[in-house]
Amino acid sequence: MTFFYFEDFAVGQKFLGSERFVLDAAAIKSFAAAYDPEPFHLDEAAASRNPALRGLTASGWHTASITMRLLVESELRPMGGILGLGVDEIRWPRPVRPGDELRVESEVIELRPSESRPAHGIVKIRTTTFNQANEPVQLVVSNILVERRAA
Amino acid sequence: MTFFYFEDFAVGQKFLGSERFVLDAAAIKSFAAAYDPEPFHLDEAAASRNPALRGLTASGWHTASITMRLLVESELRPMGGILGLGVDEIRWPRPVRPGDELRVESEVIELRPSESRPAHGIVKIRTTTFNQANEPVQLVVSNILVERRAA
Repeated sequence: MTFFYFEDFAVGQKFLGSERFVLDAAAIKSFAAAYDPEPFHLDEAAASRNPALRGLTASGWHTASITMRLLVESELRPMGGILGLGVDEIRWPRPVRPGDELRVESEVIELRPSESRPAHGIVKIRTTTFNQANEPVQLVVSNILVERRAA
Repeated sequence: MTFFYFEDFAVGQKFLGSERFVLDAAAIKSFAAAYDPEPFHLDEAAASRNPALRGLTASGWHTASITMRLLVESELRPMGGILGLGVDEIRWPRPVRPGDELRVESEVIELRPSESRPAHGIVKIRTTTFNQANEPVQLVVSNILVERRAA
């Protein structure tokens, strides 16, 4: 297994392979009951009446959490783990439905030193989550703190 | 219970009361095992060795998901539920630790019509998640789709 220090990352570097994560209706409802208890994430009939969704839909936070898991399991392995400082943007361009199989692709889009932590750098990564039809269901741009190689 | 149409929101409107959500170490590890299996979210010893964290820390996605739950339970109740289109920003300024008690405050910061859905508007909301010491542990700016009152 290869682990990356800050110096090992390059803008444009891509991590395309990922595991797959399949969601069923039970998983969608279970996450929603704990963290996003809206009718359109909990109940098929209520969801089908929602004009913007027209059917049971996973919480965006469920999709974001699954994306994190797929990222942790991917080849993008900073030394010490993926330590997120924050996110610049999340978009959910289409709903995630029961039976969807998700995977991720990520790309390094910016590298900068950490002002507050001289032993670390900040890697900005754009991650796209796709469903089984290769349609993007989430875009996220995140900033992670990565150790520099000792001088 | 009051439900809000798009026209009922105003820039500067605040929703300050919220429920409380307490995390213990077991909940932090359980979420991390499912969605963010990094050593510093799973194991006290590994976490204490991480120089940036110095102790077991909740996944940022766990904090984000708890924030969503507190928001759904708050007085911010759009007609039809909180339907997120995306997020402009998330920051995690300090770690969430076992035993922390979280609450949220939110404020409407922008209102605009939906270009693609004439029956809806888009409400931009800034939500701050605080711990029991009233220190912010997360800032999130989110865009939600809200029904307009029928003309």
